[in-house]
Amino acid sequence: MNLHDLQTPALLIDAGALEHNLKTMSAALPGPKLRPHVKAHKCTELAKRQAARGHRGFTCATPLEVVGMAKAGLGDDLLLANESLDPRRLEAMAECEGRVTVAVDSEATIEAAARCGIHEVLVDVNVGLPRCGCPPTDAGRLAESARRQGLRVRGVMGYEGHLMAVADRETRQAGVEASMKQLLEAHALTGGDIVSAGGTGSYDINPWANEIQAGSYALMDTEYQKLGLPFEQALFVYATVISKCPGFAVGDSGLKALGMDHGNPDMLGATVLFCSDEHITFVPEGDLAVGDRVRVVPGHVDPTMAKHERVHVVEGETVLETWPVDLRGW
Amino acid sequence: MNLHDLQTPALLIDAGALEHNLKTMSAALPGPKLRPHVKAHKCTELAKRQAARGHRGFTCATPLEVVGMAKAGLGDDLLLANESLDPRRLEAMAECEGRVTVAVDSEATIEAAARCGIHEVLVDVNVGLPRCGCPPTDAGRLAESARRQGLRVRGVMGYEGHLMAVADRETRQAGVEASMKQLLEAHALTGGDIVSAGGTGSYDINPWANEIQAGSYALMDTEYQKLGLPFEQALFVYATVISKCPGFAVGDSGLKALGMDHGNPDMLGATVLFCSDEHITFVPEGDLAVGDRVRVVPGHVDPTMAKHERVHVVEGETVLETWPVDLRGW
Repeated sequence: MNLHDLQTPALLIDAGALEHNLKTMSAALPGPKLRPHVKAHKCTELAKRQAARGHRGFTCATPLEVVGMAKAGLGDDLLLANESLDPRRLEAMAECEGRVTVAVDSEATIEAAARCGIHEVLVDVNVGLPRCGCPPTDAGRLAESARRQGLRVRGVMGYEGHLMAVADRETRQAGVEASMKQLLEAHALTGGDIVSAGGTGSYDINPWANEIQAGSYALMDTEYQKLGLPFEQALFVYATVISKCPGFAVGDSGLKALGMDHGNPDMLGATVLFCSDEHITFVPEGDLAVGDRVRVVPGHVDPTMAKHERVHVVEGETVLETWPVDLRGW
Repeated sequence: MNLHDLQTPALLIDAGALEHNLKTMSAALPGPKLRPHVKAHKCTELAKRQAARGHRGFTCATPLEVVGMAKAGLGDDLLLANESLDPRRLEAMAECEGRVTVAVDSEATIEAAARCGIHEVLVDVNVGLPRCGCPPTDAGRLAESARRQGLRVRGVMGYEGHLMAVADRETRQAGVEASMKQLLEAHALTGGDIVSAGGTGSYDINPWANEIQAGSYALMDTEYQKLGLPFEQALFVYATVISKCPGFAVGDSGLKALGMDHGNPDMLGATVLFCSDEHITFVPEGDLAVGDRVRVVPGHVDPTMAKHERVHVVEGETVLETWPVDLRGW
């Protein structure tokens, strides 16, 4: 199939850029040093490419992602890097065909996991991002409580997410070091083999964690591009020009097709003015006709993927494959 | 079913607030004076409630919405208030069980409509929002061209969307008047019965259009609440508190469950700090425990609805009905 046969808005992965990104990351963090985060793409076919490069453990943000990965035969070592109190979802994870480890950061989350048949946990530690995670000094108490309730404690996780977008590399690095010092203090209290942390923004400046939970590196977005990382833009939203006026043109990919929490997307060869539900208004550099196709570069890869049922893998004008975005929802 | 049995994140409609909004709008714009925009809710069950109040014509933003509305028996008079060049989608609309009118603003869109079996069009006129629509002075030429190609021209549409969020009512009103003057000039050139325009922000200050395309009024969001309109907040995202630290708490409804293009959502009884993919970090006013439920108020109703497969209609603690959000996608 040719690119021009696709109905728009269509989500595109540039096959060459994806390949480059997977290869580059696997060279930096081979095998179990990387636990790819599937929330960034929600696509088991893409996860299979990551597994084929030797990364057999995965990070998930929702129970649905965990269960879906196990169903797809990718259940060797799945971490829900998030807290859940939902008995139906915890039981579904406990019963799925895979090894499932769940993050816990409170007595309530430990009790819910134990009650629903989960066997293994990581203690989630707050290392500076005001989100989930216990204070580092509470990690030992929680680990003991989990063990008392029959859970195996595999170690700690702590996401230094407040540092991912820090533009200056040295400042980012100093922040990561301070965060990881807290995580290692917590780890000394919990025991276990795993110190899980990191993301695309810290993948090469976090030697303290023994596995990195990066996800965005595979597809990239305009937010991560600002950091000057060695990963290429692989994700695009393909749009048709449906209207044109002197001074601007309008494409049919609007904010319902794009993650907007990082602001407007970019475009190749154009300046974006604004997005509406089903439109993107932009100023093209060259001449464009109604019916022409254009590429939009999302500001944030994760929610962009979550808005599409499928993604097309393309090489030049050829559509090589179409993958379902099969881990959407909760 | 009780509210507390719902898995979160869950989309909630307050039945009483919805009823109030539908009633208030139908009193202001009875019957055909309102052509409700289904892009705001993407839900045929909600559209049936609007139809039951006498609004039998609907506005759609995507061909999928048009075809889905016709399938649901709501095809009396469906307007695609958007341009399409997609032959498969134009043909699907032409073949659906309903009366379908399509917006056109160029020779290309007219030719596509005529070629694919569409019978009726409105000329879409740019009245100030830099998006689709021809210059007012081009409307006559396009109407003639459409008629030459066998299309029936039902009139004009022009969305004064650049004015919807103008806080001061008098400024908004003056802007709407100027925009509608342009639309009426175009209408004088096209003929036809319809002058379609407006939205929730102009529903009571646009006497120039003979039908108003409002959609958000039914469910509302924080953006439209700023205008002091007589509609109540009816849409909420229900979240579970999954983590708690001194000073903040974390709910399990993040930016993948919320339209973020208008910025952070609000919360009842709490201050929102930030949203991540699957989390909302907030400062609660009172005391909250892990496992408690909270309500989040979306910033923008349209993309929030588009992120959920279903919506629950609730009255107090009781879930009255669950409706599929069945018009998602393109």
